[in-house]
Amino acid sequence: MRVLFNEEMQQIADDLDTMAVDVKTSIDGAGKALLENDIDAAQSVIDGDLKIDALEASVIDECVKMLAKQSPVATDLRTVVSTLRIASTFERMGDLARHIAETARRAYPNSAITPSMRDVFTDMQKFDSEATSEIIDILKTRDEQKAEQLIVNDARLDNMHTKTFDIINADSWDGDRQQTIDAVLIARFYERIGDHAVGVARRIVYMVSGFDPSKDPTPVLTSGIDE
Amino acid sequence: MRVLFNEEMQQIADDLDTMAVDVKTSIDGAGKALLENDIDAAQSVIDGDLKIDALEASVIDECVKMLAKQSPVATDLRTVVSTLRIASTFERMGDLARHIAETARRAYPNSAITPSMRDVFTDMQKFDSEATSEIIDILKTRDEQKAEQLIVNDARLDNMHTKTFDIINADSWDGDRQQTIDAVLIARFYERIGDHAVGVARRIVYMVSGFDPSKDPTPVLTSGIDE
Repeated sequence: MRVLFNEEMQQIADDLDTMAVDVKTSIDGAGKALLENDIDAAQSVIDGDLKIDALEASVIDECVKMLAKQSPVATDLRTVVSTLRIASTFERMGDLARHIAETARRAYPNSAITPSMRDVFTDMQKFDSEATSEIIDILKTRDEQKAEQLIVNDARLDNMHTKTFDIINADSWDGDRQQTIDAVLIARFYERIGDHAVGVARRIVYMVSGFDPSKDPTPVLTSGIDE
Repeated sequence: MRVLFNEEMQQIADDLDTMAVDVKTSIDGAGKALLENDIDAAQSVIDGDLKIDALEASVIDECVKMLAKQSPVATDLRTVVSTLRIASTFERMGDLARHIAETARRAYPNSAITPSMRDVFTDMQKFDSEATSEIIDILKTRDEQKAEQLIVNDARLDNMHTKTFDIINADSWDGDRQQTIDAVLIARFYERIGDHAVGVARRIVYMVSGFDPSKDPTPVLTSGIDE
């Protein structure tokens, strides 16, 4: 029974790893679509989102079956419950990457972004892509300190998000109405992807330690998991 | 053991009901803050969000304890797993209502919205408030048909969301830069609240029937749970 149990836990962990890698591929593709005006990359992200949705459904099925058949307790139970929640978060991260790709596709052959937005969106793209790489790594290593570092870094993304508003509000803003709408939404999508990555980091800390850092009253860790 | 089990299941269901009612209070308060420029309502929503966050944590704790001690199967297991996910969705709905309230508070004593946006935001507010009332009702009655109706109605909200972009893109648009940013974000927050309500309806269908309507290939039900 224990062998079967471990095999099933491993299968769930493997599927979650696959989801994380797919989400990173989507985020990188969305960046290519947006920043390099790459219509093929946009289409790949849009098409690939179905696979992420299917993986989420499969991970949730596996978790429910595991709970029904094996009745895990303690760390194993925390792992299954965290996995359920992380899979849903990955699914949302995939949706957000798709939204960015769809925005790029709609504007094509023009760019969805104005030159004034390029630097900050490049930074946000880099942040989200790197945060997702960290998540892939932390899922394997269960490195709690690395997860906590990611949680702390979230403030950097918030600053980038604020900067997008400053650019739009500046006298020098040269975007038309649609570009203004797109800039606000793209900034929001990037900010949400990063927040979700931080949410996953929190859940990995919970999975490893049983301690939920989102409930920590110290200032460094209280920035909420937004939306 | 069964008595204890039923009592614990009831406690979890009651707490989820309380969360739903609190979320509806937040959404209604956010509407008052935004549409009637009511700063006290805004502050109540912002303060009240902590209670919703605490309730989510408590529901999740109860579900994990239930899984550990009682090892539910079949319908009971589906109920616990769905409850975990619905609690997280309610928490996000509360966050989104808070974002609307924060936007109203930042603009105060001015209104965050231009007169041209009033009608569509009134409609979106009404949609989200009513959808949340339906959810409160469906959680109690487990009325699958009512849940499916809510899923179908989601298209109406999408149309309202599209209308907000049309207003901003029209020649007659009179908002300044900050009002444009706020209009785009408020529209997004309203659309997300409604989408989350629909996501909850889907999960209630799953809880009742074991069938997940988000995986239904018929057109009526495929509009994805977004972000």
